[in-house]
Order: sequence, then structure tokens, then C-alpha cells
Amino acid sequence: MRIHIQNPEGDALFAITPAQVAAALARHPDFAAAGISLAHDEAGLWSALAEAEVLVTWTRLAARHFPEGVLPGAAPKLKAIFCTSAGVDRLAPFAWLPPGVALLNNRGTHGAKAGEFGLMALLMLANHIPTFAQDQQKQVWSPRFGSVLAGRTVCVVGLGSLGGAVAERAAQFGMTVIGVRNSDAPHPACSRVVSQDAIDSVLPEAEFLVLACPLTPRTQGLLDRRRMALLPRGAKLVNIARGPVWDEDALCDALESGHLAGAVTDVQVQEPLPAGDRLWTAPNLLITPHMSADDPATYNDQSLDLLFQNLRAMRQGQPMPQRVDTARGY
Amino acid sequence: MRIHIQNPEGDALFAITPAQVAAALARHPDFAAAGISLAHDEAGLWSALAEAEVLVTWTRLAARHFPEGVLPGAAPKLKAIFCTSAGVDRLAPFAWLPPGVALLNNRGTHGAKAGEFGLMALLMLANHIPTFAQDQQKQVWSPRFGSVLAGRTVCVVGLGSLGGAVAERAAQFGMTVIGVRNSDAPHPACSRVVSQDAIDSVLPEAEFLVLACPLTPRTQGLLDRRRMALLPRGAKLVNIARGPVWDEDALCDALESGHLAGAVTDVQVQEPLPAGDRLWTAPNLLITPHMSADDPATYNDQSLDLLFQNLRAMRQGQPMPQRVDTARGY
Repeated sequence: MRIHIQNPEGDALFAITPAQVAAALARHPDFAAAGISLAHDEAGLWSALAEAEVLVTWTRLAARHFPEGVLPGAAPKLKAIFCTSAGVDRLAPFAWLPPGVALLNNRGTHGAKAGEFGLMALLMLANHIPTFAQDQQKQVWSPRFGSVLAGRTVCVVGLGSLGGAVAERAAQFGMTVIGVRNSDAPHPACSRVVSQDAIDSVLPEAEFLVLACPLTPRTQGLLDRRRMALLPRGAKLVNIARGPVWDEDALCDALESGHLAGAVTDVQVQEPLPAGDRLWTAPNLLITPHMSADDPATYNDQSLDLLFQNLRAMRQGQPMPQRVDTARGY
Repeated sequence: MRIHIQNPEGDALFAITPAQVAAALARHPDFAAAGISLAHDEAGLWSALAEAEVLVTWTRLAARHFPEGVLPGAAPKLKAIFCTSAGVDRLAPFAWLPPGVALLNNRGTHGAKAGEFGLMALLMLANHIPTFAQDQQKQVWSPRFGSVLAGRTVCVVGLGSLGGAVAERAAQFGMTVIGVRNSDAPHPACSRVVSQDAIDSVLPEAEFLVLACPLTPRTQGLLDRRRMALLPRGAKLVNIARGPVWDEDALCDALESGHLAGAVTDVQVQEPLPAGDRLWTAPNLLITPHMSADDPATYNDQSLDLLFQNLRAMRQGQPMPQRVDTARGY
């Protein structure tokens, strides 16, 4: 099996290294005979694609290099593309993907890190940290007190690898967790789960709300101005999903009016967030630069483990667990 | 038994209310016959003290009203003073306290809240939040990534109600916890405990260090410039003890030089921290205004429960669990 790994140029932190590949092959010795190439330049990509059966790459590289119609000619033997990220919204719609090629993501890699980040964000909001960070900027020392998480209600939208981990952490700290996802199937960390169609019915209970769903046509604009108004006064929000899942202007308005008491967002509609954007100065909002779910110490090892688990399934004619359902978009 | 509760003037959040007293008496019906008075003005204080056997008050009020020699004349029947805080460093030295009067604090009240705050601070440092808060001020979006807490080493100085709770939370998240306290007695959350005399031996291992000890003559200046230099490069600090436990100037220097990678401090030598203090602008430092351990939703209820538990012990001639050892200062 010929596998090509295409890294971006100049990313020392998350580029997959030959040493990581060697270590992964030692953990998956049934792939010892695979021919594995690595490149970070365009010449290396196109020459490897001529023979590659599997491509491992980043969504932003796939989006840049594979407009519709390119892959069938450039990669005639390709059976699978494994993206080293969970969100593939950047690649939608999927007309560029030849029908015989499976698209895989690395969902599952982000759970431990995202669970910690989500819990941290809940604790930060319970403790008024975004407010204190803005007070510090003004050199103002003004105590406000907060309560422990136990007994408070959080609504978690999306119960996959990210949202499921946040829900588990929140439940460990004694919170009442209401889940929202595609179906109303129960989740062990949630006292109740409703389908996305019924989200309006649970928003009035959400003292805290965490967005952790994939960005798809169904979730785009999900937390709009009307739904923000359904949240209780003083609600606090966390976004570790994608910027377009909420309405950034409505968020800023609700923070300015005091309807929302605080927010932490790791994602923005425009990334990098440009200087001058009103998000930067919205009251009681803390911004992090899309780092909530990526642990460089474990990221590539876990991605490569998932890659080989999926390739093993493919070789055995089994369904590949990380295969993206392009109709749903995740 | 005559009990007088002296509240500060104008504190709506933490003043003990008649309703809280009534609820506490319902939980402790063996004190139903106690005569309980409340006041928040000086006239109320001095008139009640003439008959009071027990005074419940705040350290800052006791410090203001009871210079040495005042209490024997003003409160001839006094047997105990219960302070609604854990730290009594403001009252040291204790020459003002008549020999027959027991000084009690409310240690134990702060554990749940402080444990959450301490864990939050560790997660914030692992996730570079103080840095991102300062980036936000400059409208700069610059990703840095962080690792999960599991497998990393934290040194917790002080294993009482606060430090013990932080140690337990850190252990739950898979950290290796080294404890430092008065003795080297083991602690269930710590892989190792050393006495304060041996702190130098563990500082080089402390990727994270949490100060959570009482301020006493023994801990004043404990984390001085020399000991900060013993920490590994890139170490991250949390202070939920008291400002004078570390050297604030040495901290700022170590943050500016990059020897320390970040810090969160809830306490400062001078509180309120005045505008212009160099702490406000030290790189990668996040300041909170002494709120880490106080949960207004539960604080007074828990304090009153401790009060009656201790008064019950006193009535029965048993040792009072929250009695302060004035020789040790906590």
C-alpha cells in the first residue's frame, strides 16, 4: 500500500515527522511493508499522487490543491484521503471528491484536550475571568465572586468527541448536563438529550452553553439572534465548534446589553481574527486563537493510530470508523 | 449562650443575615435557646460585647477594634471569637487576644471553591490563557498550543483545606502531585510529601507550582528570588495563599526574563492592588482580585455550621476543631 503524507510548509509543531511515522509503524507492524512518502512542497505532492493509494494531509491543503475535477487525473489510484483534523467544513461541498475515494478525518484525537479546555472555560466563566482580564487591562481591582459548578446547568451542543468530553467533565463536577445533537439518543453524561430540532425548548434552562458541534449546513447560524434571546439573562457561552455556528454580531450585542454575562470563544468566523474586529473588545469575552483541541504532544501519534486502524478496516473490507459522511458533512 | 455576630457595614454579599442564622439554628436545634444578636455598627458591637460569650466577626473588624488590652474590659464574658475567614494573618501577633479566649477560623469552608479555582488556574496556564488575554488587548491572534495536564508535575505548597483540594483535583486529572507542608506526613493525592525545610529539593521538578499555605512567620517570603531560580525554565505558578508568601518583584523579573512562562495570582501584597503596580503589566501574568475561595452561595451557611460544631465541642469540653494555634499562626 502506498501512502503519501503531505505536510504544510513551515509548520514545525504539527507537521508529521519521519520519526513519528516510524514509531507508528512499530505500533502497527502489519503496515511495515507499506511504502510511505512525506513531502511539504507541491512537486512532492503531485509526483507522489500519481502512485498513492492513500493521502494524508491537511484540510487547507486539500482545499487549495483539489478543485473539482483535479483528483481523478492527478491521483488515479487514490482510495482514501485522511485529514489530520476533525472539522472538514472547509472541504464542503464535496463535489471535488471522486466517488470511489473515502474521506477520513481524525475525530477522536481531540477529546482529551477539548474536554479540559471546555471545563476550563466553564470554570473561567463561573469565576468571571474574562471580566478580570479586562479589568487588568484598566488596572482595576474589583472583586466579584462566583459559585462552584456543582448544581448548575450546562447545555452542550454536539456530543461527539469534543462535546462528549466536555459533557463528561461537566458531569464529573456535578453539573446538570443537557445534550443537543442530531438525535435524542441518550448520552451517559447527560441527564437529558434533545435533537437539534428541539433546541429552543432547552435554551431557557442553559445557565451555561457550550457549542461543540461540527459546522454543517444544518448547524450554520444555529445560535442566531433569536435563540440567544431565549437564553436566560446572565447566561455564559463557550464556542469550541466553529465561528459560523453562532452570530458574532448578535453575541457582541448581547454581551454589550448585559443579556449574556460572559463568553469564551476559541473560534471565529474570520481566522486569524483581524485587528479592529468588534469581537476583540466586546465586554466579558475572552478570545483564544483556535487551539482548544490540539495537543502537540500527542496529536500526530493519535492521528497516525487512527489512520492505520482505518486502513486496516479498509484492507479487510470493513467500514472505516473515521469515514466522513459527505451528505451530513462530518 | 450569648452569641454576637458583627458584620461589616455595607457588604451585601457576605454579611450574615437573620435568615441564614435562622436556617442554621434549624440545622443545629441544640442551639435554639442561644441568644443571638447581629449588628453592623460600632454601637451595636460594644453594647453586645458586654454580655457576649461568643463573637462572630471578620478579621479586618477584629484587627481594627481590638488593639492589645481592649478585650478584657470590653468583653469580660468572652470565651471564643469565630472569624469568618481561614487566614488570620491580619490578626498576628496575637497579644491582643486574652489568654482565656479561643480564636476560631472557618477553615474548610473554602475547599470546594478553591479546588476548582486551582484546577482552573492550572488549566489556564497549560493553555496559555494569560498570554492570550494580553494578546487580545493588542488585538493579536497568535496560536500557541498546550498539552493536557496528565503526566505533568505540580508542586502544591500547603495541604490544608485549599491546597488539599487543589492536590485532589490535580491528581484526578492525572498530574503527579508533590506536596510541601509543615511535616512530611503523606497525603492521599500526593505521590510524595516533603516538609517545608526540604522545599528546595523538589522545586527543580515543579513544572507547575501552587502556593496554598497560610501566611505565617514561617511562610513569609518562602518563594523568594533564590527559590524561583530553582524552578525549571518555563515553570508556571499559581498563588492562592497570600501575596507576601512570594517575592512579587522577583516574580515580575522572572516573567520578564522568560524564566517563568506564566502565572495566575489571586492575592497581592497590597490589596486592592493600586494602579501603576508593575504586577498589572507583567508578561503572562493574570491577576484576580482575591475571590478564589469564596462562594457566596454557600459561604455563610458553611461558616455557621462550623461555628455551631465548634461551640458544641466547647460546651462538651472537647477540643474545638477550628481553633487557631496562635503560636503557629493558623
